Amino acid sequence: MKERVYQANKRLPEEGLVKLTWGNVSEIDRDLGIIVIKPSGVDYQTMTVDSMVVCDLTGTPKEAKTLKPSSDIKTHALLYKHFEGVKAIVHTHSTNAVKWAQAQRDIPAYGTTHADTFYGSVPCTRPLRASEVTADYEKETGKVIVETFEKRGLDPLACPAVLTAGHGPFTWGQSAEQAVSNSIVLEEVAEMALGTEALTLERTPIADYLLDKHYFRKHGEHAYYGQG
Amino acid sequence: MKERVYQANKRLPEEGLVKLTWGNVSEIDRDLGIIVIKPSGVDYQTMTVDSMVVCDLTGTPKEAKTLKPSSDIKTHALLYKHFEGVKAIVHTHSTNAVKWAQAQRDIPAYGTTHADTFYGSVPCTRPLRASEVTADYEKETGKVIVETFEKRGLDPLACPAVLTAGHGPFTWGQSAEQAVSNSIVLEEVAEMALGTEALTLERTPIADYLLDKHYFRKHGEHAYYGQG
Amino acid sequence: MKERVYQANKRLPEEGLVKLTWGNVSEIDRDLGIIVIKPSGVDYQTMTVDSMVVCDLTGTPKEAKTLKPSSDIKTHALLYKHFEGVKAIVHTHSTNAVKWAQAQRDIPAYGTTHADTFYGSVPCTRPLRASEVTADYEKETGKVIVETFEKRGLDPLACPAVLTAGHGPFTWGQSAEQAVSNSIVLEEVAEMALGTEALTLERTPIADYLLDKHYFRKHGEHAYYGQG
Amino acid sequence: MKERVYQANKRLPEEGLVKLTWGNVSEIDRDLGIIVIKPSGVDYQTMTVDSMVVCDLTGTPKEAKTLKPSSDIKTHALLYKHFEGVKAIVHTHSTNAVKWAQAQRDIPAYGTTHADTFYGSVPCTRPLRASEVTADYEKETGKVIVETFEKRGLDPLACPAVLTAGHGPFTWGQSAEQAVSNSIVLEEVAEMALGTEALTLERTPIADYLLDKHYFRKHGEHAYYGQG
Repeated sequence: MKERVYQANKRLPEEGLVKLTWGNVSEIDRDLGIIVIKPSGVDYQTMTVDSMVVCDLTGTPKEAKTLKPSSDIKTHALLYKHFEGVKAIVHTHSTNAVKWAQAQRDIPAYGTTHADTFYGSVPCTRPLRASEVTADYEKETGKVIVETFEKRGLDPLACPAVLTAGHGPFTWGQSAEQAVSNSIVLEEVAEMALGTEALTLERTPIADYLLDKHYFRKHGEHAYYGQG
Repeated sequence: MKERVYQANKRLPEEGLVKLTWGNVSEIDRDLGIIVIKPSGVDYQTMTVDSMVVCDLTGTPKEAKTLKPSSDIKTHALLYKHFEGVKAIVHTHSTNAVKWAQAQRDIPAYGTTHADTFYGSVPCTRPLRASEVTADYEKETGKVIVETFEKRGLDPLACPAVLTAGHGPFTWGQSAEQAVSNSIVLEEVAEMALGTEALTLERTPIADYLLDKHYFRKHGEHAYYGQG
Repeated sequence: MKERVYQANKRLPEEGLVKLTWGNVSEIDRDLGIIVIKPSGVDYQTMTVDSMVVCDLTGTPKEAKTLKPSSDIKTHALLYKHFEGVKAIVHTHSTNAVKWAQAQRDIPAYGTTHADTFYGSVPCTRPLRASEVTADYEKETGKVIVETFEKRGLDPLACPAVLTAGHGPFTWGQSAEQAVSNSIVLEEVAEMALGTEALTLERTPIADYLLDKHYFRKHGEHAYYGQG
Repeated sequence: MKERVYQANKRLPEEGLVKLTWGNVSEIDRDLGIIVIKPSGVDYQTMTVDSMVVCDLTGTPKEAKTLKPSSDIKTHALLYKHFEGVKAIVHTHSTNAVKWAQAQRDIPAYGTTHADTFYGSVPCTRPLRASEVTADYEKETGKVIVETFEKRGLDPLACPAVLTAGHGPFTWGQSAEQAVSNSIVLEEVAEMALGTEALTLERTPIADYLLDKHYFRKHGEHAYYGQG
């Protein structure tokens, strides 16, 4: 499990999703009651399989002699608690996704590249209030993500990504590998959507029937993409 | 033939035209009545020459024990049926071409980089109707491409590329290698045209005589570019 | 010290921050009264540890037989004189930071990626006057940077970067490595901010409490990011 | 000389200035009365030192058994004839420079990155007339470049670059290496200028005294940049 989390973290800079130490991948084992996550502020080049940090489900390190976990651990922990089917979470500051997060806008589903992975707009949360930021910031970041999905009636497995206003993206999945892939897709559709808006004044997402077609040809029991 | 299709598919991520498994190259042998195409959802790193899938001209795999062909096989098959001179087809989600497809706009011939390969605007299809998407989606995608060329009186050999509205580009050529080259050119002119529009309010393509000059110095019996 | 300055200079092209010979890193040893800097106009490939130039605190080479220091040495020297806590300085022409410098605009703190490193807008200086350019240009460049920080009451350690109008960025830090990292962050937030403005007509920086949270979770005595 | 031209041509794709076979470098030896240039339509990977083509000063190959020279040879030949100090010429379709050429706009000197190499705006020619395109296209391309410099009273050595309307850039220099460097700078300032215009409605170039300072600190008898 440490190995998988390590490999997934290593992919972040390789895929151009993070600079310096800006990003982290975690995985949960709900049976064992543990979350494994990247240590805080450690370079992707110098981190090792063993430096991955094992925490309990509140985000507290299990072992005494350990590196500190990513400062975002409490966001991860809260998301795992509320999003039951999720097994891995990725946080990055990937360039184009951050542009949308900073503009505090959802990313509309302008095309099938988007629809293949995200069933509808990728939502952007409301900005956090002063009291939420000063209190327990990273936990409140998780709470506003959950609030966004609940208020809009979104299924986190059908839309495995969110933008936190003024901050950046989180993605998740059934495995660390899939969660990283979802970060790759998010960054790509963020760039495509920005360019689409530069080319037309229309702000119309693709038709629902095309969204359905592309999403469900890849997901669910009638999926026929891939070797299944 | 499998080897050529394999090599052409491998070039897609190398040339920055696809991420993850988003793209496929096929080639047809009209005498043998077969199409060879990339298997569906398989990584470019793990695919092998042998995993290329041999189909008949309707897109049905010829052999029993085989991987499933790319889900876009029926689009390829329909294009081969109607575009007689075409020997290879490429589908990608390359970033800048998709921006235009999502904006549902033709790419105007703003310069000679475009004119060297595409004789006039690269057309964007109309969006598919609900009935077309829910019925036989991939085949209908091929049909709307053919409809676009027929309605506008375009020669698919003089304009070896199309954008499908809300989706992405298809290119083709006399060989898998040429079809991939055409995808490279399309992505490049898509980026250039976007930037051109950012720099001027004029939306005027180059003059017809310059389009003719550049296209015909590279194509047809009076071509004098290259070693001929 | 020459070794550190050499390594930091080598990172500039590796991180995509400079083309050709456009950039330089220096470090100061205030006890020894020396500044070590890249030689002027020498390729990053051909420079060696020994070709780093040792200057006194006015920017004059200490040794007779030496390469000429970067033409920007006097800017570095003046900044070291006025910004006491600074131990290393980097100058680049990185693409996105230069766009803002040429537009003669501050980079607003649109998000937490910015706030993690820069406590508020990254300031852009006023343009230099004709008399300043013709007199002692590189020294005057340093003086207008100091003027910008003093007039606005900015702490150079809390905002370790500046844009010089019509020219480009300077960053600094407690070490050559940190100063280069700050150049990486500056280039990234410059790109993000440009994209943010393309996506929304709002020009509102993030709330002060979010700026405080992110800046101070990484800096100062209450910092809890990293392994501390 | 073939070796130098070969090396300079090889740098074009390495520096990201060309795709496929879109670009060429030539060098002139005025004493020997020869121009050496890349062969037409040959890949940068498969070309060799020996495949470089030796032409006379009209652009006609000197040897019987030889590859055809780049189709742009007559443009090169005409520029060499009229621009006396020029020893090497580069033609590319580099992405950002082409955006400006397609927008048919000069690139203004928005900053010192530009001023370090180009003394004022990089000019864009008028579009060629139908009669010029159909007659002797490549030669007429050279003539309209010369016309642009003459009409505007520009010195080709002080502004070693031009954009041909609807087509792309040519740069030149005292050596093949310098001409390629000028193509790198042109592509970079084209990108910076585009971004600058996205950030401000001002369209004001830098002050003349700053342009003078930067240009002349690198060029002419009072230059003090580099080890000179």
